[in-house]
Amino acid sequence: MNKLSSGELNKHNFSGGPGVLPDVVLEQVREAILVVPEVGLSVLGISHRSDWFAAVVAELEANVLFLLGLPSNYHVLLLQGGATQQFSMVPMTLLRGKEQPAEYMKTGYWGGKVVAEARREGPIDVIWDGHSSGFRRLPRDDELEFRSEAPYVHYVSNETVEGLQFHRVLGRDDVPRICDMSSDFLSAPCKADQFSLIYAHAQKNIGPAGVTVVVIRDELLEGAPRDLPSFLDYRAQIGAHSILNTPPVFSIYVVLLVTRWLRDNVGGLSAMDQINSRKADLLYGALDDSDGFYKGRAAREDRSKMNVVFNLRSNELENRFISTAADAGFSGLSGHRSIGGVRASLYNGMQLRAVGNLVDFMDDFKRCNQ
Amino acid sequence: MNKLSSGELNKHNFSGGPGVLPDVVLEQVREAILVVPEVGLSVLGISHRSDWFAAVVAELEANVLFLLGLPSNYHVLLLQGGATQQFSMVPMTLLRGKEQPAEYMKTGYWGGKVVAEARREGPIDVIWDGHSSGFRRLPRDDELEFRSEAPYVHYVSNETVEGLQFHRVLGRDDVPRICDMSSDFLSAPCKADQFSLIYAHAQKNIGPAGVTVVVIRDELLEGAPRDLPSFLDYRAQIGAHSILNTPPVFSIYVVLLVTRWLRDNVGGLSAMDQINSRKADLLYGALDDSDGFYKGRAAREDRSKMNVVFNLRSNELENRFISTAADAGFSGLSGHRSIGGVRASLYNGMQLRAVGNLVDFMDDFKRCNQ
Repeated sequence: MNKLSSGELNKHNFSGGPGVLPDVVLEQVREAILVVPEVGLSVLGISHRSDWFAAVVAELEANVLFLLGLPSNYHVLLLQGGATQQFSMVPMTLLRGKEQPAEYMKTGYWGGKVVAEARREGPIDVIWDGHSSGFRRLPRDDELEFRSEAPYVHYVSNETVEGLQFHRVLGRDDVPRICDMSSDFLSAPCKADQFSLIYAHAQKNIGPAGVTVVVIRDELLEGAPRDLPSFLDYRAQIGAHSILNTPPVFSIYVVLLVTRWLRDNVGGLSAMDQINSRKADLLYGALDDSDGFYKGRAAREDRSKMNVVFNLRSNELENRFISTAADAGFSGLSGHRSIGGVRASLYNGMQLRAVGNLVDFMDDFKRCNQ
Repeated sequence: MNKLSSGELNKHNFSGGPGVLPDVVLEQVREAILVVPEVGLSVLGISHRSDWFAAVVAELEANVLFLLGLPSNYHVLLLQGGATQQFSMVPMTLLRGKEQPAEYMKTGYWGGKVVAEARREGPIDVIWDGHSSGFRRLPRDDELEFRSEAPYVHYVSNETVEGLQFHRVLGRDDVPRICDMSSDFLSAPCKADQFSLIYAHAQKNIGPAGVTVVVIRDELLEGAPRDLPSFLDYRAQIGAHSILNTPPVFSIYVVLLVTRWLRDNVGGLSAMDQINSRKADLLYGALDDSDGFYKGRAAREDRSKMNVVFNLRSNELENRFISTAADAGFSGLSGHRSIGGVRASLYNGMQLRAVGNLVDFMDDFKRCNQ
C-alpha cells in the first residue's frame, strides 16, 4: 500500500482528541511561537493583561456568538479544567441545596462520567440509561419523559467513544437545557439559543487541549451561590472576561484562529456541517458497502458525524488494520480503551480528501484480508 | 538610542508573566507545532493517552524531582487552573472541618489573594500583614511566631508584584510547610524537602500559561477528604499521573523542554541561581549607582532576584521611561496595575546579556532626563 509523505501526516490524524487542526491554522500557530504579527513577540511571552490579549478574548467571544447566532444575553467563557471541571461546576452552581433532582442521561462513556461527578453535588435523576443496549443507540423521544420540576436537564450531544450523536434538541422549553458539546461544538449549527449552558473543551473541533468554552445565558445564574471559590464561579469569570487569573493564553489564541477560519475560510457553521456531513457519508458509505467486512457500531439513526466507530470480524484483524494503517500514515485509529475496535474521528480540521484516502486504504485492506 | 532588531525582541521581554522563555526552547516548540520528532505529528494533535505523552509526563516528573533533589515520597502533578486553583485546593484538602486555623502571611498582592480564597474553606490566622509598610519589606524572624497546632503554614516565596523574595525557609519542622513558588520555582535551589507541598504555575520560569506544577509529599494526604470532585482531588490526580482527564498537553510539553534545558544546558538549579543572581546584581547595582534617579522599591534584604521593581521621580517620568524603552525594543516593563512604577522581571529565560542591554539603556535614559 502507498505510504503518505511526512508532510501529509498531520492531515491524516484520525485521533479522537486532541485531534487534527486545520493546516492553515497550524502554520499561523507555528509563526506565532516566535512572532505574533501584531505584537512582535512570541505568543508564549505576551502578558494576559495586554491590550492585545484583551482584543483576542473580545474577538473570540464575538466569533463564538456570531457562529452560533446568539444574542448578547449569552456570555462566552474560556475556562481551564476541561469538560470534567464543568461536570462539577454545573451542579455546584445549579444543584447544591436543591430538592428536585436534575435530569441526566447515561448515553455512553461520557454520559456516565458526568453523572458520577454531578451526584456529589446534589440530587440526580438518570432518566435514560443505554447500558443494557451496550451504548449502541440513543433514546427515542417516546422513551424520554422530562419533568417540569427539574432544575435542569443535562445531556451529551455526541458520545465520542461510542460514536453516537443526537440529531435533535432534547428536553422542554420550561427547563434549562445544559449540554456537553465537547466533541461536536462548532461542527454544525446546533440551535444554541435553545440551551441555557453549553460547554465544550477545545481539543476536538476548535483547538488544542487546555481551554474549555462555556456559553451561558444570563438568566441561568440568577440565584447561583455566592460562596464558591472564584475560579469556580461563573459570575466572577463573566465579570473578568475569563481573565480572572492568568488564562491559557496560547490555547485561547489557537481557538481564536480556528474561529476565524470557520468564519472566513469555511463560511460559517452551515458550510462546516455540509463538509462534515460529506466526510461522514463517505466513510459510513464505505462501511455499508463492505459486505459486513467493516461493521458500524452505532444504530444508523444515531450515527455520529464526528466519530465513526466500527469493528472488523476479530480483535486480531482490528489490530492488523490499525497497525497497517499506521504504517501507511493514518494515525489515531484505535478505538477508545474502554470498548476497543476502530474509531476514525472526522473533526472540523479533517479534510474530505483525507477521508477519501482512508476509504481507499480500507478498500485495499479489505481486498488483502478478505 | 539604539533600537533592538526584531529577532532580539523575545530576548528582551521583561514581562512579569507570561514571560520570556529560553530561545532554544522556543525553537524546539516552533518545530513541534508541525512535527514532534519522535512522533511525526503536530504536538497539538497527539493523544494524551499515547505512549509518547505518558513518557513526556514520566520524564517531566523525574526532571522536577531531580532538579529539586527530592526523594520518591514526593509526587509531581501537572494541573490546570493556575495558582488560583491551588489557593482553594490546599484548604479544601487540609482545612475543611478543622478547628485550628492554618497560618498565612499577607506579604503582598498574592499573599492577600490567597487568604481571601482560603477563608472560604476553613479557619485562617494571618500571622503577619505587611500592609502597613506598603508591602515594601518581608517579616523578620523575630516578628513571626509559628504555633505547633496549626494544620499547616502557607506563604508566598516571591511576591511578583512588589518584588519581594524570602531568602530563607519559614515555619517549623513539625507543621507542614506549603509554599506558592509561582514566580521563583526552579530558579534556584529551594530546600524543597522541607516543604510538604509546593505549587507554581508555569508562566514565569518554566513554561507558558496553562499548567501548574504541584509537588506534594505523600504523608500530607493522609486524612484528606474523599468526597472532593475528582479534578480537585490530589489523590485522584496522583493516581492518574495527571492524566485524569485531558491535560494541557502543549503546555506540559513546553515545561518538559524547559526542565531538559535546566538539566542539560544550564546544569541544574545551583548554576541557574548563579546566573539569576548575576542578572539581579547587575540591575540592582544600576539602581543603587543611579544617585536616586532609579529607586528600588523593596527593602534591600528582601529584594527579589526575579522581579526588580523600581520608581522614578514622577509618574510622568516613569511613563516616559516605559514608552521609550518599548520603542527601543524592551517590553513588559510596566509595573503591576495595582502599584504602578517599573518592573523588570528576570526569569530563567532572560539572558545576562539582555539585562546588560537594559542597564545600558537605563544609563542613556538617565543622562537624557536628569
